[in-house]
Amino acid sequence: MKRVYNFNPGPATLPLEVLQEAQAEFLNFADSGMSIIEISHRSKPYEKVHNQAKADILELMGLGDDYEVLFIQGGASLQFAMIPLNFATKEKPGSYAVTGTFAKNAHKEANNLGVATLAASTESENFRRIPRQDELKISPDSAYFHICNNNTIFGTEYHYIPDTKNIPLFADMSSDMLSRPMDFKKFSLIYAGVQKNLGPAGVVVVVAKKSLLEKSPENLPTMLKYETFYKKNSLYNTPPAFSIYMVGKVAAWIKNCGGLEEMAKRNSAKAKILYDAIDESNGFYKGHAEKDSRSFMNVTFRLPSEDLEKKFVAEALEKNLSGVKGHRSVGGMRASIYNAMPIEGVETLADFMKNFAKNN
Amino acid sequence: MKRVYNFNPGPATLPLEVLQEAQAEFLNFADSGMSIIEISHRSKPYEKVHNQAKADILELMGLGDDYEVLFIQGGASLQFAMIPLNFATKEKPGSYAVTGTFAKNAHKEANNLGVATLAASTESENFRRIPRQDELKISPDSAYFHICNNNTIFGTEYHYIPDTKNIPLFADMSSDMLSRPMDFKKFSLIYAGVQKNLGPAGVVVVVAKKSLLEKSPENLPTMLKYETFYKKNSLYNTPPAFSIYMVGKVAAWIKNCGGLEEMAKRNSAKAKILYDAIDESNGFYKGHAEKDSRSFMNVTFRLPSEDLEKKFVAEALEKNLSGVKGHRSVGGMRASIYNAMPIEGVETLADFMKNFAKNN
Repeated sequence: MKRVYNFNPGPATLPLEVLQEAQAEFLNFADSGMSIIEISHRSKPYEKVHNQAKADILELMGLGDDYEVLFIQGGASLQFAMIPLNFATKEKPGSYAVTGTFAKNAHKEANNLGVATLAASTESENFRRIPRQDELKISPDSAYFHICNNNTIFGTEYHYIPDTKNIPLFADMSSDMLSRPMDFKKFSLIYAGVQKNLGPAGVVVVVAKKSLLEKSPENLPTMLKYETFYKKNSLYNTPPAFSIYMVGKVAAWIKNCGGLEEMAKRNSAKAKILYDAIDESNGFYKGHAEKDSRSFMNVTFRLPSEDLEKKFVAEALEKNLSGVKGHRSVGGMRASIYNAMPIEGVETLADFMKNFAKNN
Repeated sequence: MKRVYNFNPGPATLPLEVLQEAQAEFLNFADSGMSIIEISHRSKPYEKVHNQAKADILELMGLGDDYEVLFIQGGASLQFAMIPLNFATKEKPGSYAVTGTFAKNAHKEANNLGVATLAASTESENFRRIPRQDELKISPDSAYFHICNNNTIFGTEYHYIPDTKNIPLFADMSSDMLSRPMDFKKFSLIYAGVQKNLGPAGVVVVVAKKSLLEKSPENLPTMLKYETFYKKNSLYNTPPAFSIYMVGKVAAWIKNCGGLEEMAKRNSAKAKILYDAIDESNGFYKGHAEKDSRSFMNVTFRLPSEDLEKKFVAEALEKNLSGVKGHRSVGGMRASIYNAMPIEGVETLADFMKNFAKNN
């Protein structure tokens, strides 16, 4: 069977064991005589999948009963609107740190509603770095402070948890959710479109303090209230069952591997291999991110010319290294090395990088 | 391999051939070396799937270039809000016919926004029937007239297309989309949560006149504007790729079977078998829907007592007839017999019904 090393930023590579398991039971889930995509979302076998996925996510994050896991459709892009609609007002706006495309979109949605302030931005530096703690101007009247923890396009990641002076900390972790242990209790709301590190596109995992979810503004449409999802265990209407089922399998796989500590070990080892390949290339490869902001998940770098970059992508593909082309706003290359990317894939890419630099 | 006859209302049974095809290529889609759930939504192989699904849906419905197919997350429940947010105002409200739970929810969302009028309701008759044309009081200042074409819970279906006097006709077809040919050109906007007749939960197919989609109110969040989906070919953000891929496979399957004419033939034959079993039971089984409003998709009926109903469900399950329990708001039984339910399943159920009536 043909398998490539898939460095795409999302949808992205998933653990082969997880895919094989899903394939094997695709026609007859839990001996129900139905596929997981045919079974009622009100049935016991589905309910078990749903609740186990929630429990495993909380366990992996070391969070207790004061947090809830929600499954919501619409992608992180819908969260960009739901968050200010549910939590911000003109008097108590949301405060945003803008560190990349998605952070900027989140800020923009809140700003369009007239309920945003800007705490920091590194846009003038083409988002090469995460702002330092002392650069964050979080207004004390903020409803929350919102960050994008890992910036997929620019390849930067927070390596500290911002001190918000008791303003609730909200984070888009779409591209680094469950990639390493953190003191998640410092966050009031975390969300992730799952298609990068956790499963198939089609669901956002929201992990939030229950106290935030109990009551949403009454005038909001039902499907835009966190309250609706919280009070109905994310089963107010038919959930995106297959995506949730796969997220559950990925969470179980992470647990079996050894949890977030083991993911962090693997991910930092993989990132080191690629950053070393960049740093030891005598300037042939140039990293986009500043060193102290480098992402463990998305490694972005340029080559000496756009012609060489095109050649790099084409020759990489011949070695079964797929999806290494960077986003147009950065140019060059991006290797996304989420949890499921095996170290062999990263080693193959690093070897290819060394040979390519030598030959060009 | 164990397979049951799955009479659940949604998620629901899907064609076995389609499931087998998806299973076979689950690890290596289109020789990409990736699963369909791992492949980039900006890649050529995915784009082909996405655009082919759109084209097949339009072709099956006999619609031309003046209509567009959108793929939106959030379920029909989010459409209940998006429709009034995009199209209705206090001066030009949406007009609703309330014929069941989902029709009522659609009306409620618009009403909560202060932009709804009620054209008809059969709630006082516990939704046993569809209102007649002469009962529809569609105000001439309406932005649209909204119906739920098939009422899953109550087992009723429109057997005529309402004449709206040029008010744009909008229809929720979640439970009968692509089940039979209709003059779809009479509709301005049709939508369906796909998990009943078209694929796995996680996407809504919206088929609408392009002229409606070109401009949405500016103050709406990006993900609530039809314009966003229209202008970006439903690829503004990562789409629910697996659900769309499966919908495409189901649409192709319908085409291979002979299109909507063939579906209608099969579906009316299946419905006749069950309605005959009810009507010829000497009153043992009592249909919920009035005869001229009976659904081809969901057959609802009661038994002489709740004890017998419990026994019916249990004994049916022993015969591999799953999901026949009705919704609590009707009670009794509901057999959902969407496109993918084979006639053998319906025959088995009808035989079981006859024997059960004889023995009890």
